[in-house]
Amino acid sequence: MPGELVEDVVIVRDEKEASQVYNKGFYGYPLSGGALELDVLEACYLLETGRMQVLRNQRSLAFSDMIKLSATSCDGFEILYIVYRDLRQRGYVVKPDSGEFDFRVFPRGGTPTTSQTKYWVLAVAERSLFDMTGFLEEMARSERTRKELLLAIVDEEGDITYYKASRSGPTGHTVGDVASPIEAVLFEDRVLVLEEDRAERLYRNGFYGKKLGKVLQLSLIETAYLMGEDKVTVRTPGSNRKVSLSGLIRKAMKIQPDFELRLRAYGDLRKRGLIVKTGFKYGAHFRVYEADPEKHHAKYLVHAVPEDYKAMWPEISRAVRLAHGVKKDILFGRVSEKDVQYLRFRRVRP
Amino acid sequence: MPGELVEDVVIVRDEKEASQVYNKGFYGYPLSGGALELDVLEACYLLETGRMQVLRNQRSLAFSDMIKLSATSCDGFEILYIVYRDLRQRGYVVKPDSGEFDFRVFPRGGTPTTSQTKYWVLAVAERSLFDMTGFLEEMARSERTRKELLLAIVDEEGDITYYKASRSGPTGHTVGDVASPIEAVLFEDRVLVLEEDRAERLYRNGFYGKKLGKVLQLSLIETAYLMGEDKVTVRTPGSNRKVSLSGLIRKAMKIQPDFELRLRAYGDLRKRGLIVKTGFKYGAHFRVYEADPEKHHAKYLVHAVPEDYKAMWPEISRAVRLAHGVKKDILFGRVSEKDVQYLRFRRVRP
Repeated sequence: MPGELVEDVVIVRDEKEASQVYNKGFYGYPLSGGALELDVLEACYLLETGRMQVLRNQRSLAFSDMIKLSATSCDGFEILYIVYRDLRQRGYVVKPDSGEFDFRVFPRGGTPTTSQTKYWVLAVAERSLFDMTGFLEEMARSERTRKELLLAIVDEEGDITYYKASRSGPTGHTVGDVASPIEAVLFEDRVLVLEEDRAERLYRNGFYGKKLGKVLQLSLIETAYLMGEDKVTVRTPGSNRKVSLSGLIRKAMKIQPDFELRLRAYGDLRKRGLIVKTGFKYGAHFRVYEADPEKHHAKYLVHAVPEDYKAMWPEISRAVRLAHGVKKDILFGRVSEKDVQYLRFRRVRP
Repeated sequence: MPGELVEDVVIVRDEKEASQVYNKGFYGYPLSGGALELDVLEACYLLETGRMQVLRNQRSLAFSDMIKLSATSCDGFEILYIVYRDLRQRGYVVKPDSGEFDFRVFPRGGTPTTSQTKYWVLAVAERSLFDMTGFLEEMARSERTRKELLLAIVDEEGDITYYKASRSGPTGHTVGDVASPIEAVLFEDRVLVLEEDRAERLYRNGFYGKKLGKVLQLSLIETAYLMGEDKVTVRTPGSNRKVSLSGLIRKAMKIQPDFELRLRAYGDLRKRGLIVKTGFKYGAHFRVYEADPEKHHAKYLVHAVPEDYKAMWPEISRAVRLAHGVKKDILFGRVSEKDVQYLRFRRVRP
């Protein structure tokens, strides 16, 4: 069944053959008059799988020639083709999208005539940049059409990792309530509550800090949050001078330059009723519990990022892979002037 | 059993009591005349666990006061104390080290009089910097005494993660042998071997590339290595111009500024008989196989770093945790003028 390569499309003119190709896999776009127009991704795939011959100047093209010609006529052809053929081989009907995404994919067993689109797919080279602002715009577009957004990240060897991206609003049910401010003492980069009963009270009301024998050790971020909520006052050990919140933040920023960013995300998570602990072991800012961390596993890893966050895809990939390995969800918390938005990535096998 | 705080040590003067403390856990350093000198870490621990009273100006000190005084007299006291008490609670005899490490630890059940040191321990705040050069010097010192080096990394909440660090010389047994140079074509940031039999030959001899239908796709790093070994020649698809190795490297460096660093590590691993693939999915540079990647799992993740590599500890932690989760060893490959040295970290529970 021959098609003819004309510029950057392949035309099947024979009406019967055109209709066969279209009906068996929904390849191409029917033209008036019964012919079928295939784009180069579709034609390459049909050629590779031996279901089509492609002619150019009356000569039949080898697959390797067709690849060469397509790569020169179509921007980003390799990445697109790697993803297209993978999704086809997984048994999906895949249509190149002329709009904002690369492909639309129908549910397994579904077709353009029987089903709604299941996924929008973006084919992404791992070497490209992840741009939080641009990405959230694409998410919003995808959400407006109520479809899932699937990311196909192609590594330098052509292997694909699929991620589902979605926005998330995590909540918990822990309301810490400490009646009167509790006194604590600042040592280097840690804060200790030295009186046993107050230490216990603070720990039991919101699971702040960590017991170190009879004293309670608070991290700087816990301390800064609790100071902002008027639940803790801090003094220096020798001179017994009161430490101000801004003084504590200045001190913390010398150790962690992004301390204020983290503090914003920390506070937002706490106000959502979640219990927040350091995510150091996982290379993320926080691990987050919905309830008592002594009785439950952390549900989320959260990484706070600035509004205009940009990263290389391998960084995102590493975070998702790590969270997946420890059965947690990774959330990127985008901290802006007015709020914190959470973006969730999950690795999937479509 | 009272001891007296004198400057930054605690002295137990009663001979019988001194000998009891020393013999039951090997706390302190016997002085001539039968008295015992404890350093503040030891004294704090004995006070916290109710095995000792500490006097200062004839007044008995509360644990919280002893902590305050110790923190002001001893540099980095909190981190040291957190690690000291953890190792003691795990049942080890731990002695503060006056030399280059923080502690020496005896085998479980062993004591300074019956056993050799098992570990040297470094107590490290997660906020401190990992410095490859300095670290390798400490490794060398530890190796000279034939002891294991244990790192105790303390996070901002006082939780400890232990790592064993060692040098490693990974080897495999794959010798790729391609008789004559094979022609390949450069597309954007990938290279294709379009002739089926040559593609097959290159794949079978060293597992280079990835099959994409009938063609073989090589990554830029594979191509650069194979060009350097005179096993591949590369041409452009349209003009059929020959691409030079330096031209390819220049092109690759626009996409990956650290391409030359990676290429050095890639080449070293290949020359060790290992099969090297991208580690993109794991956020590391390479995943490395000892033999046929279709039949074996990758044994290592390797991350190439410059000679003077410095990183925050959470970065190291993330890499180790991730590798641990997928049952691989993480190696940091330190690329210098003359060679590539591999540093391995393993998470352990001492």
